[in-house]
Amino acid sequence: MELTFLGTSAGVPTKTRNVTSIALNLHGLRPTLWLFDCGEGTQQQILHTSFNPGKLEKIFITHLHGDHLFGLPGLLCSRSMAGSTEPLTLYGPPGLKTFVDTALSLSGSWLTYPLDIVEVSAGEVCEDSQLKVSARPLSHTLDCVGYRIEEQPRPGPLDVARLAAEGVKPGPCFQQLKRGESVTLEDGRVLNGRDYVGAATPGRSLAIFGDTRPTPEGLTLAAGVDVMVHEATLEASMAERANSRGHSTTAQAAALALEAGVRRLIVTHFSARYSLEDSERLLAECRAIFPATDIAADFATFRI
Amino acid sequence: MELTFLGTSAGVPTKTRNVTSIALNLHGLRPTLWLFDCGEGTQQQILHTSFNPGKLEKIFITHLHGDHLFGLPGLLCSRSMAGSTEPLTLYGPPGLKTFVDTALSLSGSWLTYPLDIVEVSAGEVCEDSQLKVSARPLSHTLDCVGYRIEEQPRPGPLDVARLAAEGVKPGPCFQQLKRGESVTLEDGRVLNGRDYVGAATPGRSLAIFGDTRPTPEGLTLAAGVDVMVHEATLEASMAERANSRGHSTTAQAAALALEAGVRRLIVTHFSARYSLEDSERLLAECRAIFPATDIAADFATFRI
Repeated sequence: MELTFLGTSAGVPTKTRNVTSIALNLHGLRPTLWLFDCGEGTQQQILHTSFNPGKLEKIFITHLHGDHLFGLPGLLCSRSMAGSTEPLTLYGPPGLKTFVDTALSLSGSWLTYPLDIVEVSAGEVCEDSQLKVSARPLSHTLDCVGYRIEEQPRPGPLDVARLAAEGVKPGPCFQQLKRGESVTLEDGRVLNGRDYVGAATPGRSLAIFGDTRPTPEGLTLAAGVDVMVHEATLEASMAERANSRGHSTTAQAAALALEAGVRRLIVTHFSARYSLEDSERLLAECRAIFPATDIAADFATFRI
Repeated sequence: MELTFLGTSAGVPTKTRNVTSIALNLHGLRPTLWLFDCGEGTQQQILHTSFNPGKLEKIFITHLHGDHLFGLPGLLCSRSMAGSTEPLTLYGPPGLKTFVDTALSLSGSWLTYPLDIVEVSAGEVCEDSQLKVSARPLSHTLDCVGYRIEEQPRPGPLDVARLAAEGVKPGPCFQQLKRGESVTLEDGRVLNGRDYVGAATPGRSLAIFGDTRPTPEGLTLAAGVDVMVHEATLEASMAERANSRGHSTTAQAAALALEAGVRRLIVTHFSARYSLEDSERLLAECRAIFPATDIAADFATFRI
């Protein structure tokens, strides 16, 4: 899996940072792409990557502020004009469906693919055999959620040596045992797969925050994840200003990463007051508290 | 006045052309900017110009297709986040108000400036002492208008030599005469300004088309203008395909310019199938019919 930041600016775009969108490339699991937020100009940013909007499977919106949302109608229409037929599902807070439906219908747009819009609140968002996504409410000036993405545990290895020692011949029964099922051998012995499979490997996990001031929910959302992506709208000394506007500082993002026991923090969503040259300083503020921090820039890609 | 093309691609953005928006810089008349259409990413394009969104006075939308519209909510919000307090008026086909109101309200956006939304059809759109704008319906796949912008005639020069010869002394009465008013002199003579002012200079005029297949309305819209801006979505040999989708070819734009007796044609709105390298060929197709043609590219500026 790879995270690519398509926009890292808060509120308004700048010459060097577009407004928020993050792509999660699932290529190691399946040939699809997920998107988290879709600020205006996201489709233009995608033109400068190798991503194919036709491969977009799910788009998760954290909240309906324009800098996280206004690129959605254009991306949906362009995906259609490219002739995509693969289904696409959108997830986001209540109001998302009205917004998308109004934009598509007033603009006379029609889509070449099935579009499903799921309005979410706290709890499970979607789950399949590979991945599970849940949402937690955050604390912003508008309904806002963060998403936790968990890869399903991968089954441990089958103890082939032990099976051979016990005289069990390789065959279809190995697949059943590997899945943890019970198997009756030709000689009448009954083997339970769980006795022959090693411990499951925990899947990778990510927490992608929307805009938020510090909130206890953040701890639940991020607890123990491999990668936590958190906003750091303002620098450490501006906590009051940041929090009063529903945002966090560099130091607050880092403090949460430390408390939540995450492996790695990536900060993004910087006020337009900061130039790219300020990145070092903002990053240093985080690393002073949580050394395993990286700072996002547009088109920066992080392997998970 | 200057026209700057902020986006020249049809339907979808490309790496080298954004979707449609055209800025009309009125700096010679007043320190304001008008915009015609506002495709997604227009505010990002403006970041790469010297334009100040706070100086935007009017935005005219030709039709509600996304590639002409979806940049509007973001531009309105960013103009507000920059603290602009100057009023802004939007003009466009019915549905524009619902689109903007829905986007602003669901995104929890509020504006720091008065916003007026005027839904237009054929006829006069707005007029002041400097400029007059009218709209004509075009022929597209959705309600679409073109805008004709006419500078008010500039009064002719005051015949100061004749006034001196008649013994009239310079003073405030010269301003009244220049405005065509009647003046009673101290000696009782009554002078009519119209007798002392030369012929008015016709103002400059532009026709900015929305998307359209050829239609007789185009002739009314463009008759005799100094600059006609017309779409040329496809090349000359693809008229059937273009027209069936509500669009025109290079040759059709040029033929209209010739028939309407305009001084200069600028073609824009090119299918994403064309690269910048195709511009020479598309331009040649126009010039074969109407030599005074220019071709738009993103950020190209034309003085009027």
